[in-house]
Amino acid sequence: MLFSSVVTSENAPKSFSQNPKVRIGLLGYGTVGSSLAKLLMERRKALQAASGIDFELTKVAVRNTDKYSFEGDFVVSNSAEEVVTDPEVDLVVELIGGIEPARELILMALGAGKPVVTGNKELIANHGLDLQKIANLNQVDLLFEASTAGAIPILRPLRESLLGEEVQQIVGIVNGTTNYILTQMSETGAAFDDALAEAQRLGFAEADPTADVEGHDAAAKAAIMSSMAFGAHIQSSNVACEGITGVTAEDIETASSLGYVVKLLAVCSSDNPNEISARVAPTLVSKDHPLAAVRGSYNAVFVRGAASSELMFYGRGAGGLPTASAVLGDIVDAARNLVQGTYRELPSQELLGEQDLGGDGASFFLVVEAKDTPGVLSEISGLFAKHGISINKVEQTPISRTADEPAGIARIVFTTLAASETQFEALFKELEASESVSKLGSKLRILDES
Amino acid sequence: MLFSSVVTSENAPKSFSQNPKVRIGLLGYGTVGSSLAKLLMERRKALQAASGIDFELTKVAVRNTDKYSFEGDFVVSNSAEEVVTDPEVDLVVELIGGIEPARELILMALGAGKPVVTGNKELIANHGLDLQKIANLNQVDLLFEASTAGAIPILRPLRESLLGEEVQQIVGIVNGTTNYILTQMSETGAAFDDALAEAQRLGFAEADPTADVEGHDAAAKAAIMSSMAFGAHIQSSNVACEGITGVTAEDIETASSLGYVVKLLAVCSSDNPNEISARVAPTLVSKDHPLAAVRGSYNAVFVRGAASSELMFYGRGAGGLPTASAVLGDIVDAARNLVQGTYRELPSQELLGEQDLGGDGASFFLVVEAKDTPGVLSEISGLFAKHGISINKVEQTPISRTADEPAGIARIVFTTLAASETQFEALFKELEASESVSKLGSKLRILDES
Repeated sequence: MLFSSVVTSENAPKSFSQNPKVRIGLLGYGTVGSSLAKLLMERRKALQAASGIDFELTKVAVRNTDKYSFEGDFVVSNSAEEVVTDPEVDLVVELIGGIEPARELILMALGAGKPVVTGNKELIANHGLDLQKIANLNQVDLLFEASTAGAIPILRPLRESLLGEEVQQIVGIVNGTTNYILTQMSETGAAFDDALAEAQRLGFAEADPTADVEGHDAAAKAAIMSSMAFGAHIQSSNVACEGITGVTAEDIETASSLGYVVKLLAVCSSDNPNEISARVAPTLVSKDHPLAAVRGSYNAVFVRGAASSELMFYGRGAGGLPTASAVLGDIVDAARNLVQGTYRELPSQELLGEQDLGGDGASFFLVVEAKDTPGVLSEISGLFAKHGISINKVEQTPISRTADEPAGIARIVFTTLAASETQFEALFKELEASESVSKLGSKLRILDES
Repeated sequence: MLFSSVVTSENAPKSFSQNPKVRIGLLGYGTVGSSLAKLLMERRKALQAASGIDFELTKVAVRNTDKYSFEGDFVVSNSAEEVVTDPEVDLVVELIGGIEPARELILMALGAGKPVVTGNKELIANHGLDLQKIANLNQVDLLFEASTAGAIPILRPLRESLLGEEVQQIVGIVNGTTNYILTQMSETGAAFDDALAEAQRLGFAEADPTADVEGHDAAAKAAIMSSMAFGAHIQSSNVACEGITGVTAEDIETASSLGYVVKLLAVCSSDNPNEISARVAPTLVSKDHPLAAVRGSYNAVFVRGAASSELMFYGRGAGGLPTASAVLGDIVDAARNLVQGTYRELPSQELLGEQDLGGDGASFFLVVEAKDTPGVLSEISGLFAKHGISINKVEQTPISRTADEPAGIARIVFTTLAASETQFEALFKELEASESVSKLGSKLRILDES
């Protein structure tokens, strides 16, 4: 078993000469991997001038060496294990993705005292804590900036610049596919299906878009960011998750008329390490909020801290070169530590276990269609009151009069003040059961700006 | 002389125990200093949990100890030198501001092998290179995140995350006072003087607003950011600088009708270290650009890199606690290095000397008032052509017909494509001399988005 061999590292930090060279072994040569190889070779002189270190891409591992055309002065191997264990490789970059064999290979590298840089969101979101412990035990860096929000430096600011900060809230637009779709729906009035098809045509969405549109991708990133900020280890499965497939162009238009845009947000909050919430859901954002201006396939992460107040980090969340730039930043950092014989220990985190971090409530936007009879608004708003939910705004508009519904249908849009999930669940149940309600439309959260 | 004693440091890194403590000496107890003291004491336990280091605020120096009421378990001294040289101080935080005695005190601390954290924009923008050399020679950290854009982590991302990146352009809204004034003018139609008075009333502008409204504050920050990004040492005096006192509410309204907002921008570009430009000037920004949404006293820095593409960092550019949070981030970083017996060498930079980095041109927005006679547009636009300047858009509107000007006055708004400073200077001179031109209005740059 690999794991048992990992904790006893016999590798003392190498003693580097005055002109240190760090030799890189790269696992994977896909979009990001090949962009990284290109960057490492093109920027070699500039990197050495800026950091004092000569970065040499020594070896690249791919499963099938015939599949790619390689350009550069490095050895290609079809054995990732060989690259990791090669004594001529000082630092390992894992860009294979997925859980196995990436996990085993990273453990192998860490156990050999080699720093690891990875962009593997799935692995870090699900096995990050174990890997961090092994890295700490072996006194080497494990860095994964590229796993979250592509090119945007967000994890390093959280673990370095904001380590002393009491981070209260992280709100991220961390999935470019869904942000592209929602932006298209908002700006052209397109339906979800059409906007998705357009995103697929342009390469912003995959043939199977499930992980994106159902929010799973954003949930993994929420887990990684909140683990970094809140001193507790949060896994993907802890994050409450709702996608955007139910969002209609009409919702977006109505939200807009009330001063909001609809975004798929990862919202992570912490009053203290015992009161963390983490949720991915389509959410109304005030047009004045800096996240509202994040359009198309861009990502952004908004951080509220007790002292720093509001910060936002914005940029490209995907793409070969942008993501490779984040990997390169980590490589430089890890190499400088390696050359100095140090590493940056990750803060200790407590595993939260099976906990659902859905949180304790929000404000809601709710569309109800009801029979347009005298007293109907009073009856429906009475249900809100019954469950202790305060209504913020109401807009009622008549939408049709048919033979079936001679009184017509009223479309009523509510926004509420904050209340608990339990209160809302009870309200939704009762609205669904009500004879006056002909259709219960979208239920969307509203981002709390306090 | 202090300087000569600095280069020979005899202090080997202290050997820290398993539970290392770093003792902090703080120089200055103004808005940022007192906020930092509060943070260090309130966050002591949390900081230790996250970093493994016990941060103790040991000593505070202020010139007049009677002026403040101190709360906390630290010694107060009226001698900054005593605090710097105290063997019970491991790390020095300089928040006095100004050139001297801050410079001498920092040199003294670095010479004694003590890392220094400072928020002193003026000092770093004018003497940063000398101080960095001394820090490198003494193998200690000199960190100054708080000197630029307050709470926003921008220097650490530039020197860590983006060290490997080919940074092509940095565009910053780095002065909250002027951004507040321009936002007010834009959103309420207020005149410059009224918006300034309002900013002063609310504490966003000082009684003497010169350094802010004339762009000098932004120029110092431009110098610091571009030095960090471009591998050349740029001083305040290298940065071409123009303030916002000439911007009118009418300019802002006209710009808005063309799809732009007016911002005071620090624009720094580099094709290579020999072709750097750095300029502060009121500039038109397309409403689609992420910087356009930066309102009120907020700051933001937009960075374009060859690989990372577009990044933006947003947050509070001033204020006691926000700025103290940036100082705290630096303290944690420097302390971790100190405990590990390491430091982060700053990249070598070449001093540029007296060079003016005004750059090689831009696109312009230009308002001309001219006699509304047949052929006048042809005549004026002919002058653009004569100087090889391509017109992008023209809007002509008649504005008045008086007894003096029976033909009336035409107000003509031009936007141009990019041309050189020399071309524009020649055009402006000729427009000023033209008999058809009754008034030459604002000349504002347009941010190039390519």
